[in-house]
Amino acid sequence: MSTTQLDVNRMYLGIDGGGSKCKAILVDVGTGKLLGTGLAGAANPFNNYELAIASIVLAAQRALEEAKVDSTLLASITAGIGLAGVNIPESMVKMQQWLHPFKQIFVTTDLEVACLGAHNGEDGAIIIAGTGSCGFSMIDKALLTIGGHGFPHGDKGSGAWLGLQVVKKVLLSLDGLAPPSLMTPLLLNQLNCENTVQLIDTVAKQTSTFFAQLAFIVFEAARQQDTLALDIVNEGAQYINCLAQRLLKDNPPRLSLIGGLTPVLSPWLDETLQQQLEAPIFAPEMGAIIFAQQQFTSVIK
Amino acid sequence: MSTTQLDVNRMYLGIDGGGSKCKAILVDVGTGKLLGTGLAGAANPFNNYELAIASIVLAAQRALEEAKVDSTLLASITAGIGLAGVNIPESMVKMQQWLHPFKQIFVTTDLEVACLGAHNGEDGAIIIAGTGSCGFSMIDKALLTIGGHGFPHGDKGSGAWLGLQVVKKVLLSLDGLAPPSLMTPLLLNQLNCENTVQLIDTVAKQTSTFFAQLAFIVFEAARQQDTLALDIVNEGAQYINCLAQRLLKDNPPRLSLIGGLTPVLSPWLDETLQQQLEAPIFAPEMGAIIFAQQQFTSVIK
Repeated sequence: MSTTQLDVNRMYLGIDGGGSKCKAILVDVGTGKLLGTGLAGAANPFNNYELAIASIVLAAQRALEEAKVDSTLLASITAGIGLAGVNIPESMVKMQQWLHPFKQIFVTTDLEVACLGAHNGEDGAIIIAGTGSCGFSMIDKALLTIGGHGFPHGDKGSGAWLGLQVVKKVLLSLDGLAPPSLMTPLLLNQLNCENTVQLIDTVAKQTSTFFAQLAFIVFEAARQQDTLALDIVNEGAQYINCLAQRLLKDNPPRLSLIGGLTPVLSPWLDETLQQQLEAPIFAPEMGAIIFAQQQFTSVIK
Repeated sequence: MSTTQLDVNRMYLGIDGGGSKCKAILVDVGTGKLLGTGLAGAANPFNNYELAIASIVLAAQRALEEAKVDSTLLASITAGIGLAGVNIPESMVKMQQWLHPFKQIFVTTDLEVACLGAHNGEDGAIIIAGTGSCGFSMIDKALLTIGGHGFPHGDKGSGAWLGLQVVKKVLLSLDGLAPPSLMTPLLLNQLNCENTVQLIDTVAKQTSTFFAQLAFIVFEAARQQDTLALDIVNEGAQYINCLAQRLLKDNPPRLSLIGGLTPVLSPWLDETLQQQLEAPIFAPEMGAIIFAQQQFTSVIK
């Protein structure tokens, strides 16, 4: 225990919170050693502030627990926190007014910590393609965000968008207003539905997370050359191509594609773009630590 | 008062309930005379059962009040009720289990009463284009429903769909991923927003009713030949054309377009289709009375 107490000033928590989960890591920034990780539920303060702060604390406590660090030491540790939803000013204000249990917190968007992680704190651009989609770059301290406006009006090419298109096309097909599609049996089977009435009952009032879980259907059907599925995948990929073109205009030193869709979506992107993409160096939660360190340094200057 | 009491056996209530309002009429079916009308809030039992039954009763009471009929006589009057949402079996079951204050109720979908009203109880087909969109026909007692699957996955060409497309295109345009559009200033002005952040904050988590109120923007911009607006209107109209083609396959004696979008959408439909459309004979609430009379007749047979 005495070692732990000595090390606590070198410990940083890095937290990455989004619409479905919150991940925390505890790192000894002196040695760069990962001491522990913790996972908790959704942490998007725009969707649900109370849940978000609870998830952040729980993920952090779990990271300390895994590192065998006493949970009372939370009050001695600085946390970098990247969150979905804090691009909305009222959410950011709420987070900054939070009577948090840490020594100090530095809060920014999930985009900024993802970008800092992907390029190890250096300039660069990222495209996120997971439940949502978004483009972001940091060049000479200038931040640019493209897309990522939310479901169902934005986030084209994302898992939620792809899943919603699957449902739309299958409903058109079941109505006889679009050709038959391999996606129909895949979707009905996935949702345990037998007909249109059951399907519309199941998809009614669902969230982006629900639709994102249906995205695999379009890739499965596209692999088998299903016309409707190919239309969807190509339209989604085309949007991601456009995001990339816009980001590349500003000549970022590096461009990374990150998020859960990366492996399945990449092959559908422009070949030139595929070659330009570079693997992210660190995960977003490490980017959150880099952010906290950068902020801390600028504070004490 | 004695006349009213004598007439009560000839009085029927016709009720048409949807996602934003509920309309009731009280009719003397002996003379066909409209005695009173009443309006109340949303009545979609799939969205909100408690609100739906409250709206139905309130609209009915207001119709009696306008007719100067004592409200205690509700228990002596039969009501025909057409509702959005009762295509979902669980909603229909709930409505049938309702301990209602009427003498007797006959419940069916808003589509069936709209069709019965439009064609005075005879066979025919309708396309509804309002907040939602849907095709429906009744031919030789066979009912066919096309579309109308809900927001945001269905109801293409509807007010909600058109409004959502406006938001999507304006966001793409503000991101520089689509050309400038006349819809941008119209939308920002309508929603009192100055920039993208305010816009995404305003449209987040909104319902179909909210988006339907933005549909006028696309028609205004299309009238001025705005390319993005023309794309939206043409895609929506094309879907309504497809709905119509599918309905016309079964040779309905008449086809009517009804709903709030009718005047603005009609000019964008196929010209042949425009000539085939016939004006509805009665409103949906009168169709609800026709439904109740038909059901009552078949019950006593």
